[in-house]
Amino acid sequence: MTGDAAAAPSGRRIAVLAGRGEYPVRVARAAAAQGADVFVALVADAGDPADYAGYDCQPYRLGQLGRFLEEIKRRQIDEIVMVGALPRPSFGSLAPELSTLKYLPHFARAFQGGDDHLLRGVVSFFEGRGLRVLGPAEIAPELVAPLGPLGRLKPSALAQGGIATGFDLLAALSRFDIGQAAILADHRIVAVEAAEGTDAMIERVAALIKAGRLKPAKGDGVLVKAPKLGQDLRVDMPAIGPDTVARVADAGLAGIAVRAGSVLIGDRERLAAQADLAGLFIAGVA
Amino acid sequence: MTGDAAAAPSGRRIAVLAGRGEYPVRVARAAAAQGADVFVALVADAGDPADYAGYDCQPYRLGQLGRFLEEIKRRQIDEIVMVGALPRPSFGSLAPELSTLKYLPHFARAFQGGDDHLLRGVVSFFEGRGLRVLGPAEIAPELVAPLGPLGRLKPSALAQGGIATGFDLLAALSRFDIGQAAILADHRIVAVEAAEGTDAMIERVAALIKAGRLKPAKGDGVLVKAPKLGQDLRVDMPAIGPDTVARVADAGLAGIAVRAGSVLIGDRERLAAQADLAGLFIAGVA
Repeated sequence: MTGDAAAAPSGRRIAVLAGRGEYPVRVARAAAAQGADVFVALVADAGDPADYAGYDCQPYRLGQLGRFLEEIKRRQIDEIVMVGALPRPSFGSLAPELSTLKYLPHFARAFQGGDDHLLRGVVSFFEGRGLRVLGPAEIAPELVAPLGPLGRLKPSALAQGGIATGFDLLAALSRFDIGQAAILADHRIVAVEAAEGTDAMIERVAALIKAGRLKPAKGDGVLVKAPKLGQDLRVDMPAIGPDTVARVADAGLAGIAVRAGSVLIGDRERLAAQADLAGLFIAGVA
Repeated sequence: MTGDAAAAPSGRRIAVLAGRGEYPVRVARAAAAQGADVFVALVADAGDPADYAGYDCQPYRLGQLGRFLEEIKRRQIDEIVMVGALPRPSFGSLAPELSTLKYLPHFARAFQGGDDHLLRGVVSFFEGRGLRVLGPAEIAPELVAPLGPLGRLKPSALAQGGIATGFDLLAALSRFDIGQAAILADHRIVAVEAAEGTDAMIERVAALIKAGRLKPAKGDGVLVKAPKLGQDLRVDMPAIGPDTVARVADAGLAGIAVRAGSVLIGDRERLAAQADLAGLFIAGVA
C-alpha cells in the first residue's frame, strides 16, 4: 500500500464507495497506483477497514449520505467510484441523519423499482451534485473478462449452443430489470436469476442435478452472465469470482460464459488456474 | 361412476392418458358423463388405479407405447386426451419394449429440447397415427379459470401493476420454451420459473421473505401464471390448485393471477372458498 501511495501524484481526487469483497480494494489500489488521492468510504458495514490499511478510510451508514457529501466537498473530491456488493436496502431501513433528510424524496422515487432503477437514481443523485461517477473498469480494466477462454478449456459444441441461447435470453430479459444470469443444460434453460442472486440460482441447479431431475451430459451445463442491455456498467457490472467457479464446479456444470469486457472477474490468473484445476471453461464471449 | 357410465352413449371412444393428480379423474368423468366410451391409460405409475374404479383402466410404462397403440387400435379409439402431471423423463429411462423400439427415432428428436418441444413431438407422434388429440378443456371446460376474480378479493392497484409486468414477462419468455410463472413484489420481478417448477419457485420467494430480503407491502406480492404464446393447450395447460394457493398464502403473497381461459383451476368453488379463507385473490386476467 505504501508502495502504491508513492506513485506520481496525478492531482485526481477519487472517493471509492466500497461495498463488500475484493473489488473495492483492487480499485482503490489501482487508483492510488495511478497517483490519485484516494478516499475510501466504507458503505453500510459492507467493507472491512482492515483491508484498507494505509488508505484514508471512513465508514458510513446509508443514512449518513449527507455527512459523506459534506466530507467529499471539504476534500474537493469530484470523482467517485461505487464498487463491491451491497445487499439491496429497503427504503425504510435508511435511518437518515439530519444531514440526509433533505435527500430522501429523491431516494423514495429511486426505490420504486428494480435494482437498475435504484442504481440509476443513485448515479443521477451524485451527478446532480457535480460529481463524476466512474466505473471500476475505467480505473482498473484488468479486472474485466477478456475475449476468449480464460484457462485451458473451451466450451463444447453443446455448451456453445447453450451460451448462444443464454445470451439471447438475457438480452430479452433486459427491459424487465432483472436477471443477469441463467443456467442452460440439456438443450434448455434450467434456471433464470431474479431476486435470489446468482449463487442461490447455482445452488438450485446443483440440487436439481443431485436429485436426478437434471442430467447434463459431459461438457454440458453452463452459467451465462452478462449485463442488461443499456445497463450502467459504472455502477452495476456483473461479477464472477472464485466462489462462483467453485459453485459451478460443485454443481457439476461444464463452465461459465460471460460477456467479454462487461463482467468483472477479479484476478485473471487466479481464476484461470482455478478453472483449469476444476476442469471448467470460463469463456469471454463477444 | 356407474351414474356417469349410464349417460347416453355418444359413440365416441376416448383414451385418457392419465398422469398424476385430480385432472385425469375429472376429465375421465366428464367424458363418461357425455356418453363416451372411456379407456384410461395410467402412464408411468403417475396415476392411482383406485381413482378409476368403474373405468376400463390399464397401466403403461413409457416404454410400452407400442403396446398402448395396439390396444387403442384394437378398441377402435380415435381420440386421446393427455392430462395430469408427469415428471419429465430422460430419453435413457424409456426402457422400450420390443413393440416400442421402432418409435424411438421420433422420440430421440423430441427429447432434444425443452418441454414444449418434447410435447409437440408427442402430439405429432399421435396425430401422425391418425389420432385426434383433445385438450382437457375441450372435454371439461369447467376446469379452466374464468375471467375476473374467483373469490371475494380483487388485486390491489400495486398487485395489478405486478400482474401487467408479469404477463408481459411471460410473453417475452415464450420463445425460450420455459417459464409459465413468475412472482412480482415490491415493484419488481422477484422470481422466474424454469426447471425447478412453480412450487419450488414459490418456496424460494417464501424463504427470501422469511429472511427479510423481500418485504412485500400489504396487498402486494403476486404469482402470475400463463401459458406460453402459441403453447399447445391440448397437452400443456398450466394449472394451479389447492397446493398452489396454500403455498402462496404461506409465502405471504397477496394473490394469484392466471390467464383466463388458459389455466386449469380444478374445482372452482373449492378454490374460491380456499382463497377467501386465506385472504388471497385469485384473478383470471384477459
